[in-house]
Amino acid sequence: MRGLSLNQITTKGWTLPEAVRGCAEAGIEGIGLWRDKVAETGVARAAKLCRDAGLTVSSLCRGGFLTAATPEGRRAALADNLQAIEEAAELGTDTLVLVVGGLPEGSRDLPGARAAVADLLGELAPHAGDFGVRLAIEPLHPMFCADRAVVSTLGQALDLAEPFPASQVGVVVDSYHVWWDPQLAQQIARAGERIAAYQLCDWTLPLPADALLGRGHVGDGHIDFRALDAMVAAAGYTGWIEVEIFNQQIWDTPGAETLRTLIERHRAHVAAL
Amino acid sequence: MRGLSLNQITTKGWTLPEAVRGCAEAGIEGIGLWRDKVAETGVARAAKLCRDAGLTVSSLCRGGFLTAATPEGRRAALADNLQAIEEAAELGTDTLVLVVGGLPEGSRDLPGARAAVADLLGELAPHAGDFGVRLAIEPLHPMFCADRAVVSTLGQALDLAEPFPASQVGVVVDSYHVWWDPQLAQQIARAGERIAAYQLCDWTLPLPADALLGRGHVGDGHIDFRALDAMVAAAGYTGWIEVEIFNQQIWDTPGAETLRTLIERHRAHVAAL
Repeated sequence: MRGLSLNQITTKGWTLPEAVRGCAEAGIEGIGLWRDKVAETGVARAAKLCRDAGLTVSSLCRGGFLTAATPEGRRAALADNLQAIEEAAELGTDTLVLVVGGLPEGSRDLPGARAAVADLLGELAPHAGDFGVRLAIEPLHPMFCADRAVVSTLGQALDLAEPFPASQVGVVVDSYHVWWDPQLAQQIARAGERIAAYQLCDWTLPLPADALLGRGHVGDGHIDFRALDAMVAAAGYTGWIEVEIFNQQIWDTPGAETLRTLIERHRAHVAAL
Repeated sequence: MRGLSLNQITTKGWTLPEAVRGCAEAGIEGIGLWRDKVAETGVARAAKLCRDAGLTVSSLCRGGFLTAATPEGRRAALADNLQAIEEAAELGTDTLVLVVGGLPEGSRDLPGARAAVADLLGELAPHAGDFGVRLAIEPLHPMFCADRAVVSTLGQALDLAEPFPASQVGVVVDSYHVWWDPQLAQQIARAGERIAAYQLCDWTLPLPADALLGRGHVGDGHIDFRALDAMVAAAGYTGWIEVEIFNQQIWDTPGAETLRTLIERHRAHVAAL
């Protein structure tokens, strides 16, 4: 399955070694890793497992959470992101996904939180460049603006990325987060070489009790993946297509079965190979 | 309480006569009516009740649902909206709020649904003008894009309104739906005299099981109302400030108590009169 990468959260029940083995057995050649899973296995061992299995690490999820209102909070965020950059480099991926963080506790200062993100990006970007890693700003769906990411649109992510070389700061196009955006076609075209990661899952309804987990397999919801794929391809993106799904029912499904569904849906709705 | 209007959904348990009496007793001088409540009471009687109580009808909620994919669906939507325009005129309000509708059943064609909205607006706007009623396009939060409103941002609503005279087509600024928008300040400034209605409630977390009902009293959530109010005032808006809250707990509270809270929060967070 050229192009398809398993974002590891999709098989949340699997350890990193299990996910690596699962991909190898299914013929999936890319994997997006999560830092908590990497930490369980150890960075060096995780890197070796992927290399030995012939897997490309398409991204590391995730750095970010840059909106702290206090100097201590800022320092902690910087330290954590510097470590994430080094982990990404050691894992052999050039892409560190950033979920930028929501409003600080008790704050209603959205412009202030957004300015804090821009500030810390300025400190992180040169370090990322030194390690050959690109910071990939992920706009999250506006329903996560208060608690998870004050970057809500692709246009806003591109505005934040613009002061930096494209080799240091890019953006994530995640179907779930951006599909509704009236400016989607124009902002994807604008993004061009800034597209650092491309992630897919579907928008399904109703939203579950935990709104974070309302994502479905490609084809189960309301998103037109062929149209999105045409936009991303026209922008010049030739990288991995990660499937990243937060969904309790899918997490309760055996991983090998989930991977079979991923491949089947990839053929049917994205890239008919 | 100059400026404050009760959107009737906030006291969902009240009939229209009860809501009119409640406003009069609380000293609230504006009311936003809902068509189902108006139908229970009868349009002529509802109009008379409001007039006799000295209440201004700040808006009628709601027309819209313009995304039908079939000719029959389009005809039915047109007929219903023409009736809503006449009801608004008879109730003495110049503002008909439009919730434009989501994707047609089984469709993933978001650009198509958006084009259908533009088409039907073109048919409705002159009729609205004939009755002295303005169609107020309400951008809904992007989490309602699939099932309720394919118009998701103020900028998009203004693009849709632009071909028409401002006296025929305007927009709604509803804090809950637009607060997250990185382009908010710039689009409110652009809106100027297109702002036909201004509605308030707060963004509270976590989202409830029914995502429609996650709205809170002004001051209970994450929105900076003074900042929003300054933008809307700077755009030249001098009309009513409707409080419109969908929240089961508030609906279960006695109406008179809810109105006391509205007034208290209006003083504390919006207009300190």
